[in-house]
Amino acid sequence: MKYIHCLTSLSIWRGIEGEAKDITMKIGFIGLGNLGFPVAQNLLESGHELLIYNRTASKALPLVQQGAVLCNSIEELAAQCQLVCTLVSDDAALYSISESLLNSLVPDSLHISISTILPQTAKELADAHNRNGFQYLAAPVFGRPEAARARKLNFVISGEDKVCKMADPILKDAGGMGVWDFGESITAANTVKLCGNFLIGAALEAIGESIDLAKHSGVDATKMWGMFSQTILNNPVYQLYSKIILEQKFEPAAFSMKLGLKDINLVLEQAEKANQNMPIASLLQQHMMQMVGEGKQQLDWSAVALAAND
Amino acid sequence: MKYIHCLTSLSIWRGIEGEAKDITMKIGFIGLGNLGFPVAQNLLESGHELLIYNRTASKALPLVQQGAVLCNSIEELAAQCQLVCTLVSDDAALYSISESLLNSLVPDSLHISISTILPQTAKELADAHNRNGFQYLAAPVFGRPEAARARKLNFVISGEDKVCKMADPILKDAGGMGVWDFGESITAANTVKLCGNFLIGAALEAIGESIDLAKHSGVDATKMWGMFSQTILNNPVYQLYSKIILEQKFEPAAFSMKLGLKDINLVLEQAEKANQNMPIASLLQQHMMQMVGEGKQQLDWSAVALAAND
Repeated sequence: MKYIHCLTSLSIWRGIEGEAKDITMKIGFIGLGNLGFPVAQNLLESGHELLIYNRTASKALPLVQQGAVLCNSIEELAAQCQLVCTLVSDDAALYSISESLLNSLVPDSLHISISTILPQTAKELADAHNRNGFQYLAAPVFGRPEAARARKLNFVISGEDKVCKMADPILKDAGGMGVWDFGESITAANTVKLCGNFLIGAALEAIGESIDLAKHSGVDATKMWGMFSQTILNNPVYQLYSKIILEQKFEPAAFSMKLGLKDINLVLEQAEKANQNMPIASLLQQHMMQMVGEGKQQLDWSAVALAAND
Repeated sequence: MKYIHCLTSLSIWRGIEGEAKDITMKIGFIGLGNLGFPVAQNLLESGHELLIYNRTASKALPLVQQGAVLCNSIEELAAQCQLVCTLVSDDAALYSISESLLNSLVPDSLHISISTILPQTAKELADAHNRNGFQYLAAPVFGRPEAARARKLNFVISGEDKVCKMADPILKDAGGMGVWDFGESITAANTVKLCGNFLIGAALEAIGESIDLAKHSGVDATKMWGMFSQTILNNPVYQLYSKIILEQKFEPAAFSMKLGLKDINLVLEQAEKANQNMPIASLLQQHMMQMVGEGKQQLDWSAVALAAND
């Protein structure tokens, strides 16, 4: 670590020097799940001082061995830094953590909220933070844990312009190959994230249907996807998931059916608010509920591809 | 044109020299629609002698000006060459043309069948050709007219191995960036083609739903797709169609709703034969029928993206 700056001095320093490469900060990180862990690790390996908190403390130990400081409570963490990142599984968990943060953050702190949540939750949390003199940035992220480890994540952000600019280098240190600014409307980033997860979910269902049709028509589905992956659908989402689905390698889950269903439920909740029909999203919800009903909530969410002809 | 060979001499010549680059052939081409026209033109521009036939003769004139010979009937065309390509809009048209071909082809001729048809149609036509001493190759193609003009098509082929090998250089001359051999089972190529068109159709519907959700949640959908097109869905299908759908530029159609519905009907007919549920395909059928019912059969098939919230 070369420098330790608080947020305020960071802004000043950047303003004078116009170069942030050597800046390291004291960052709090809450939520060390499948994705949170490698994101936190990236921040640590980028040279930042890292304070961590996780409901299940044992998950934090490998980071402690790398130099992170494990806190016993959210309050203990919040009292020691002006920048806190959270990456948790649902809106309820984030509301609960935010309640603790609002009671313990030091003045002018920034909360970078990476979780996939309802846009309206982002709005409510941002308002609550602002009322208490804190900043809130919506910064959901695209990428599975292996993308995090390879520093190939894509963060989508929305919030006050100066906060977006401030967060940009930090999110790059967190593994963001791309940081995409969707402007000052706080709900935008989480809406984009829901649209993206919906599109990936739709692709999973379509891949599954195509494999079922090919296989039961006497066609080598692996060969077919070998071609599609190099031609009409030559992109990482289709390449990765067609392979997982063809090989039925749904364990261990990088992103579980339970979380997939949670996201699709948010998509449909947002669709209802926006008065829009989303028939593929409704189909995904039905198929994911079917899989969860069969006790498959711990499989990778791509196992939804099995549902149509289960 | 450097050499004119019939198929038999081509095989011999290739056997001796092991090099086909300089070979030009006498090729019959039937079906000069949106895609057939540039494919035929590619063959002509690759130096082949081209005989053409089209139900609407006026569409053939630009090719005649480039040196193609317009025939007045299928029989007149078939009598003059040992290689005939067909690219027509549906199974019925291909059955009808094949009936004429079977009565007029010269011995040992090869029929390269590029149309998107039911796999079972390919089987029946191949059998009929073989019984009459002719060869039949299933060679459906992926790519819109602009891809044909840019020689970036992908042909999927199935049929006898020696026929596949013989057709490969010709299909490359026809604009095939890739020629993907799916083996000797004659139904394979058309099954793969139906799976591919289904997957693209599913992407259209999903793109539409994502745009509806974003727009009605206050997000700039063009900006969102600018990001998706460079990140999670960075491939030509999503890049091209998200742009068309966002701009609602559905005319002139490169591939019409009418033809899209025809293909989805084939997908579901094949799914029924294979005893497979394909709920997204069923949804596409419903949305495409809705659009056709509204008189929109001449729009590009990507207008199906409008159906969910029409």
